[in-house]
Amino acid sequence: MMKRKITLKQIAKELDVSISTVSKSLRNSPEIGEETRLKVQAFAKFYNYKPNNIALSLKNRKTKVIGIIIPEIVHHFFSTVINGIEQVANENGYSVIICLSDDSFDKEVLNMEMLANGSIDGFIMSLSKETQFKGDFHHITEVINQGMPVVMFDRVTNEILCDKVIIDDKAAAYEAVQSLIDKGRKKIALVTTVDYVSVGKLRTDGYIKALLDNDIPFNENLIIKIEDIDTCEITIGKLLEDKAIDAVFAVNELFAVTIIKTANKIGLTVPKDLAVIAFTDGIISKYSTPTITTVSQNGIKMGNKAAKMLIERLETAEEEGNENYKTEVIETHLIERESTH
Amino acid sequence: MMKRKITLKQIAKELDVSISTVSKSLRNSPEIGEETRLKVQAFAKFYNYKPNNIALSLKNRKTKVIGIIIPEIVHHFFSTVINGIEQVANENGYSVIICLSDDSFDKEVLNMEMLANGSIDGFIMSLSKETQFKGDFHHITEVINQGMPVVMFDRVTNEILCDKVIIDDKAAAYEAVQSLIDKGRKKIALVTTVDYVSVGKLRTDGYIKALLDNDIPFNENLIIKIEDIDTCEITIGKLLEDKAIDAVFAVNELFAVTIIKTANKIGLTVPKDLAVIAFTDGIISKYSTPTITTVSQNGIKMGNKAAKMLIERLETAEEEGNENYKTEVIETHLIERESTH
Repeated sequence: MMKRKITLKQIAKELDVSISTVSKSLRNSPEIGEETRLKVQAFAKFYNYKPNNIALSLKNRKTKVIGIIIPEIVHHFFSTVINGIEQVANENGYSVIICLSDDSFDKEVLNMEMLANGSIDGFIMSLSKETQFKGDFHHITEVINQGMPVVMFDRVTNEILCDKVIIDDKAAAYEAVQSLIDKGRKKIALVTTVDYVSVGKLRTDGYIKALLDNDIPFNENLIIKIEDIDTCEITIGKLLEDKAIDAVFAVNELFAVTIIKTANKIGLTVPKDLAVIAFTDGIISKYSTPTITTVSQNGIKMGNKAAKMLIERLETAEEEGNENYKTEVIETHLIERESTH
Repeated sequence: MMKRKITLKQIAKELDVSISTVSKSLRNSPEIGEETRLKVQAFAKFYNYKPNNIALSLKNRKTKVIGIIIPEIVHHFFSTVINGIEQVANENGYSVIICLSDDSFDKEVLNMEMLANGSIDGFIMSLSKETQFKGDFHHITEVINQGMPVVMFDRVTNEILCDKVIIDDKAAAYEAVQSLIDKGRKKIALVTTVDYVSVGKLRTDGYIKALLDNDIPFNENLIIKIEDIDTCEITIGKLLEDKAIDAVFAVNELFAVTIIKTANKIGLTVPKDLAVIAFTDGIISKYSTPTITTVSQNGIKMGNKAAKMLIERLETAEEEGNENYKTEVIETHLIERESTH
């Protein structure tokens, strides 16, 4: 095919800009935005219309890809955060790559190294349990020092200076326990996991504060640390038979639904004999019988916010060199359902 | 000012053509007119967009990374497949990168382009609904033609020659419906989705065959296509009030649990008045009241198998050039729970 010689006017028409814009673009006028300028120049070059000097800077090429590292995927909360990140990323022309740390420090390090090696522009991550336990964050520091921005969400650490998106776990737990107290419950158990996740401590603090603020004595035996679901059934079954508790604040849905089933088995009714609130709103709470009152962590909003913070930093970092890191707190709220009514 | 690396999507937007056109143009597809093709190529070249890095990267180095492309993440089945892939991949020294197509053809194409561009050694993927509907698989063909192996699972197509891991959806549906018939049920509804997923058709075939093999007349009105959960409640509610059904085979857990709640609302008991089986074993079935009998798809095993097949091909491909593609069928089984007993 013969390549037609193109005129300024044709370029303008083809790209839907004014002739003046084309002309200025070909002269590298600062009046014209970079994107338009480069587009016009590309067209002109292809059609052998040569402007004076095209300054091609191949430095700092961006991938337009965001890397996400999360502890696990079989977890409704993380899935919703990912959906929230995808929304904002796609709107802004970014793609998303996900890697799982499987709550392992080594996998987290390996995945960060792999992705930082030219595949992505920046990270959004939630720390693995093992990383939080070890307190070793060198892999994150290194990435940041090399100029790659990191936004942490949910499981964060004070050891790293970067943008963060969290919920106020202490306030959220406080609100949940207060709502149980407001309904006349006094023997409230906290059912939590045996692990090193920072959020566990904060939720415990909120639980204790709500009790003390309401002059309910804090009983250490009502903080129940559960290894797995089977243990949950046995431990809670005993407490229920002893009539030692009339409400439960569980740190996840699985514990909550297991506790309800345990109560039913020994002839107790939820919520009459036992009120139940679970942390993190997921599909189990919505579809169990009775439905379960939950603390919604709003994963979508958390993902939206994390993506916005990362993209903002990616697109302003070089001019600004700005290190005013922010920590955004996403509001939680109680979703009241049958298990407390 | 920096010049960003351009994506397929951006080229498509700039030139006002579809992503598919850009993708095909860059591969010199004869489907695309010469002018468009050259224009796209000029743009891509100017912005250093390199679609043909694959062969090069394959020869020069292995990334030891497997790319997974799945339709969605808030879905227990896909999560378990990913866990299955991770297990075998990690055992063999491979890392895993996940991208979501969000059931969109364009996102599937974009994600494949992004990953194929030197980040990974091979793909494990399940097709997006839109891709199945369009029947456009050029992006997969091209990746394979350039020497990058692809293993498909669950949502596969006969149009592409590659290794596949599937379940026998027809046999699985047959077994489920037969088990309902064995329990004396005769008015069995199939509750399915309104979409283009290949597996939907196979499950319907198995449902019909089981009825006919047992001399139960097939009633088209008992194949219920559901748009969303709200519709499910209304449609099933009517059938239950009319005593038109005594059993339900639902293609997912959400439908099953909604049907049970609908039955309870109008005073019916599961399983006495209505037996319920759901396709795909997930957490809802295990924790709902009553617990739900399911067809287990065994996502872990499916993921294990897919990873084994891909790694085997990655590690023998160069010597063998072997194209004896296999389709592995993973066995399903019924997990009997309270909803049918």
